[in-house]
Amino acid sequence: MDYMLGVDIGTTSTKAVLYDMKGKVIAYANAGYKLYQDVPDMAEEDPDDILDAVVAVMGQTIQKSKAQPTDIKGVSFSCAMHSLILMDQADQPLTRAITWADNRAAKYSEELKNNGLGAEIYAKTGTPIHPMAPLSKILWLRNEKPELFKQAKKFIDLKTYIFFRLFGVYKMDYSIASATGMFNIFNLDWEPQALDLLQISREQLPKLVEPTAQITGIDPKFGNLLGISANTPFIFGASDGVLSNLGVNAIDPGVVAVTIGTSGAVRVVVDKPVVDPDGKLFCYALTKDKWVVGGPVNNGGIVFRWVKDQLFAPERITAEQMQVSTYDILTQIAEKIPAGSDGLLFHPYLGGERAPIWDAYARGSFFGLTRKHTRAHMVRAALEGIVYNLYVVMLTIEKITGKPKSIQATGGFARSSLWRQLLADIFEQPVTIPESFESSCLGAAVLGMYALGYVDDLSEVKDMIGVTHVHQPNEQNFEVYRELLPIWIRLSEVLEPEYKEIAEFQKRHSD
Amino acid sequence: MDYMLGVDIGTTSTKAVLYDMKGKVIAYANAGYKLYQDVPDMAEEDPDDILDAVVAVMGQTIQKSKAQPTDIKGVSFSCAMHSLILMDQADQPLTRAITWADNRAAKYSEELKNNGLGAEIYAKTGTPIHPMAPLSKILWLRNEKPELFKQAKKFIDLKTYIFFRLFGVYKMDYSIASATGMFNIFNLDWEPQALDLLQISREQLPKLVEPTAQITGIDPKFGNLLGISANTPFIFGASDGVLSNLGVNAIDPGVVAVTIGTSGAVRVVVDKPVVDPDGKLFCYALTKDKWVVGGPVNNGGIVFRWVKDQLFAPERITAEQMQVSTYDILTQIAEKIPAGSDGLLFHPYLGGERAPIWDAYARGSFFGLTRKHTRAHMVRAALEGIVYNLYVVMLTIEKITGKPKSIQATGGFARSSLWRQLLADIFEQPVTIPESFESSCLGAAVLGMYALGYVDDLSEVKDMIGVTHVHQPNEQNFEVYRELLPIWIRLSEVLEPEYKEIAEFQKRHSD
Ligand SMILES: Nc1ncnc2c1ncn2[C@@H]1O[C@H](COP(=O)(O)OP(=O)(O)OP(=O)(O)O)[C@@H](O)[C@H]1O
Ligand SMILES: Nc1ncnc2c1ncn2[C@@H]1O[C@H](COP(=O)(O)OP(=O)(O)O)[C@@H](O)[C@H]1O
Repeated sequence: MDYMLGVDIGTTSTKAVLYDMKGKVIAYANAGYKLYQDVPDMAEEDPDDILDAVVAVMGQTIQKSKAQPTDIKGVSFSCAMHSLILMDQADQPLTRAITWADNRAAKYSEELKNNGLGAEIYAKTGTPIHPMAPLSKILWLRNEKPELFKQAKKFIDLKTYIFFRLFGVYKMDYSIASATGMFNIFNLDWEPQALDLLQISREQLPKLVEPTAQITGIDPKFGNLLGISANTPFIFGASDGVLSNLGVNAIDPGVVAVTIGTSGAVRVVVDKPVVDPDGKLFCYALTKDKWVVGGPVNNGGIVFRWVKDQLFAPERITAEQMQVSTYDILTQIAEKIPAGSDGLLFHPYLGGERAPIWDAYARGSFFGLTRKHTRAHMVRAALEGIVYNLYVVMLTIEKITGKPKSIQATGGFARSSLWRQLLADIFEQPVTIPESFESSCLGAAVLGMYALGYVDDLSEVKDMIGVTHVHQPNEQNFEVYRELLPIWIRLSEVLEPEYKEIAEFQKRHSD
Repeated sequence: MDYMLGVDIGTTSTKAVLYDMKGKVIAYANAGYKLYQDVPDMAEEDPDDILDAVVAVMGQTIQKSKAQPTDIKGVSFSCAMHSLILMDQADQPLTRAITWADNRAAKYSEELKNNGLGAEIYAKTGTPIHPMAPLSKILWLRNEKPELFKQAKKFIDLKTYIFFRLFGVYKMDYSIASATGMFNIFNLDWEPQALDLLQISREQLPKLVEPTAQITGIDPKFGNLLGISANTPFIFGASDGVLSNLGVNAIDPGVVAVTIGTSGAVRVVVDKPVVDPDGKLFCYALTKDKWVVGGPVNNGGIVFRWVKDQLFAPERITAEQMQVSTYDILTQIAEKIPAGSDGLLFHPYLGGERAPIWDAYARGSFFGLTRKHTRAHMVRAALEGIVYNLYVVMLTIEKITGKPKSIQATGGFARSSLWRQLLADIFEQPVTIPESFESSCLGAAVLGMYALGYVDDLSEVKDMIGVTHVHQPNEQNFEVYRELLPIWIRLSEVLEPEYKEIAEFQKRHSD
C-alpha cells in the first residue's frame, strides 16, 4: 500500500494522520504539550516537548496502521505560524518557542505602526504588523533581552527546529517564512529592510525552500525509533492556515474558507501575492502560485465559551444531567430568538482583536438593550456578533479578491446548525461544511502527494473530502442582517477610540 | 388629639397617612388602581377610580385611627405631576387621566425642541420639553383628536379633578401648575406664549392658588361618608416630587434628595426659580420661596429588576427556597466584585431616558467586556451605571446650585447597603437614609401643618424623621470611580447619536 503521513504541529497539540493516496484515513494520533505563561502576555512552549510529541504521534500512527516501512511514501508537515526560537552557537535553543499568542512584543509592533516603518515593511511582507510576528518579537528581544539577542546564531521557527533535529539543516519553507514579517512575498527572499531594522543578517535565518521541497536522510536515531527508512522523503510543507484551505478544498477562486474554532479566520486563495492598502490582511504562501489572503480573528468560539461559562453557568448542571453539551442547550435557546436578536448588538472583542480592527485594546460590548432582552437574546447576539465580525473581514478581503461565490466552513462551531445558518445568512452565501478530518493534516498530506507526483494537481483534494451539510441563505433573515450590519459597523468605528482607556484601566487594576 | 391627614395620589396607588403634629404615624391606608395601556405608548387612569381610592384611603385611615372628626385638623395633598384630564361643558371628563408616563405626544415635543419654540417656553416655565408635560399633550390632542380638543371646557390635572369633585371648584396649586409646561415660574401665572401656541384661553385652565391655600365646605356626600365636618380645611398641597424633598428633610441649601425607586430623581431646593441653559433640568415650586431644581430619571430600580428577572432568572428559585429577596442575593453577589466592576461599564437606558440626556431612543449597553467578566460583574456594573447616570444629573444641577454638601436618599434601593455605599462613593458625599414613611405624605402633612400654623417653619420636619443609615464615601472606592466616570461620560456622548437607528429598528421589528 502507498501511504502519506500528514503531521500538523499545532499550538496545543500535534496531530498525525496516515492517509492512503485517495485521502482515506488509515490511522490517527495526537499528543498535547504545556503552554508556559509565567508572566503576563507570555505564551511559550518547550521545543523539545514538541519534538517528543511529533516523534510520538508519527510512531503511534505508523504502529496503529500496521504499515510496512516501505508503505510510507512520504511525510509532510503543517505547522502553526509565527513561532520564534533563538539558537546558540552550539545549536542549542536559547529560548523556548515563543508562540503567536505571546503578546510581549506589543510595544514594538505599536512603535512600528506609529513610525510608519510598519506600513513600509508590511507592503513587502504581507504580514500584518502585530506582536504575533517574529519581526516584532525579534525587535522586542533585541531591546529587552540584548544578551540573548547577541548570543543568537539563528532565529528559527518550530518546524525548522523539528527538521533541524531530524535532519541537521536549518531550512524554512516559503509559507512559514511568509508569516514571519521578514520575508518579501514578491521576490520570495528575506526582506533587507526588515533585516536592517532588526540588525540581523541573512545568515542568521534559515535557508528558504519551497513548501514542496523534500529531504531524506533522517537521523538514524529517529529513523530507527519510527521504523522509517532513511530514504523516506520528508516534505517541508507549509503553515497550518494555508494548508487548512487546501484540506477543505477552498483553493478555487471565490471559494472562501471560514473557520470558527477557539479563534477564527477568513481566507481566500489567489494566484499572486497581494497586500491590503490598510495593512489589515495577511498574504501567506501556499505554493509559489497559490497565495492565501485573509484575516485572523481572536474572538471566535472562545466567546461562545465565555457566554456558556459566565452567562449560563447554572445551565451547565442541567446539561450535565441531560448528558448533552451545554453548547447544544445554548444553541437551542438562541434559536428561539428572532434573527437580529430584537436589535441587540454584540461586539465580540473580549480579548482584544486582530482582524478586522487590529486593536489589542478592543473590548466586548452589548448595545441596544431594552427591558425586553433576556439572556437568550445575549447568546444569540453573541453568536451573531462573532459572525458579523468575520463578515467585516470578508468585506475587506472582497475589495482585493472580488465577491466570493461560496463558503467552506470548519471548526467547532460547525457542530451547530444555527451557527452554520447564521454564517449563510450574514454572508449571504451558500455554506458547505466539508467532511474533512484534521484539515491541516490532510492539506499537508495532499501537498506531499503533489510534491511526490502521486496527484497531478492540488485540486484533486476535492475527491478526498465529503460534505456533511449545506446551508442556503434565508432571505427573511438576511434582510434583517442587512439592516443591522451598517449599524454594527458604524458602532465599531464609534467605539474604537474608546477602547484604549478602559483597557488601560483594566490593566492598572488587575492583580 | 390634633391630627393632620396627608394624602399622596401616586401613579400606581393613593396613600393616606394620619400624623399627629409631631409627625408620628397614627394610621395608614393604601389603594391601587388600574393603568390603561390599550395602545402603544398610552398610560391612562380612570379619574373616578382615583376619586374612589382617595375617598377610600381617607376613610380607612380615619377609621383605623379611631380619631374623632374634630381631631382631624386638616387634610393636605400630594399628587403625581403632569397628568391631564379634559372636562366638558357639563363638567364631566372627556378623557381618562393621561399620566406622565404616556408617550403619545412624543412627536409634538420633538417638534417643539426642533423648532426652537420649546427652548423659549422652557426658559419661562422650567418644565423640560417632553411628552410627559401637559403642554405637549394638549398640542397632541389639538392635532390628533381635534373633536375632543374642541369640546374641552377645562384642561385640568388629577388633583384638580379630586378637589373639583369634593368642593366644586377648579383650582390648581402653583406646584402642580409649575409642572404643566404652561406656567411662568417667574411671575406665577399661566404663560401667554404657551397658551397661544396651544390656542387655549386662561379660562380653560384652573384658577391658580398657593400650595398652602385652603378650602372648606366639602360636599356633604363625601363629608358624611368620611365622617369629616364641613369645616375641616383641605390644603391644596403640591406635587409628590417637591413634597418628597420636604418629607425627607432635603430643603436646606446643598442638601440633595436622591431617590431610586422604580425610576429615580435628583432634587435640590433653592430659594428662587431658576432654569437650566440646556433645558435639561426642571424647576418646580414647593412654595413661593422654595423651588426644587432637579432631573427625573426613568432608569432606576426598574433596571435592577430587569437584571434580576432576565440575567438571574435561575437564582429566583434559590431565593424563594431561602425565603429571601432575590435582590438581596444579587446584592451579595455584586458586593464580591471590586468597585468599578473590573472596568465593565453599563449605561442603564433600557427604556429611553429623561434626565440627563432626554432621549427617548436611548438604549442600554455593557462596555469593556473581557473574558474575566461574569454575571456578577454585570449586576454590579448595572448598579454602578444607574448611580453614574444620577451623578451626571447631579453634575448638571451643581452648575446652577453649587456643590452639594450631603445627600438624603430614599426609595426601594435604600434597602441595600451596597447600593447606599455606591451612592456615597460615586457622589463623594455622605449619604443619609432618613426614616421617613411615605415621604410625600409626610411632606403634604407638614405643608398642611405650616399652612394652618401648627408649625412655624417647614424645617421643623427635621424633628419628625429619624435616620436609619449613614454612609461615608470610601476613599479607595471613589478614586476608582473618579477614573471611570470620565470614560463613562465620554461613552455616553459617543453612543448618543447611535441610539435612534437601533431604536427604530426595534420599533419596526416589534410585534
Ligand atoms: N456543539 C457545539 N455547538 C456549537 N459550537 C460549539 C459546539 N461545540 C464546540 N463549539 C464551539 O467550538 C469552539 C471550539 O472549537 P474547536 O474544537 O475547533 O476548537 P480549537 O481546535 O481549540 O480551535 P482552534 O482551531 O482555534 O485552536 C468552542 O469554543 C465553541 O465555541
Ligand atoms: N432588597 C432590595 N435591595 C436593593 N434594591 C431593592 C430591594 N428591593 C427592591 N429594590 C429596588 O427598588 C425598586 C423598587 O423601589 P420602590 O421605591 O419600592 O418602587 P416605586 O418607585 O415603584 O415606589 C426595585 O425595582 C428594585 O430595583
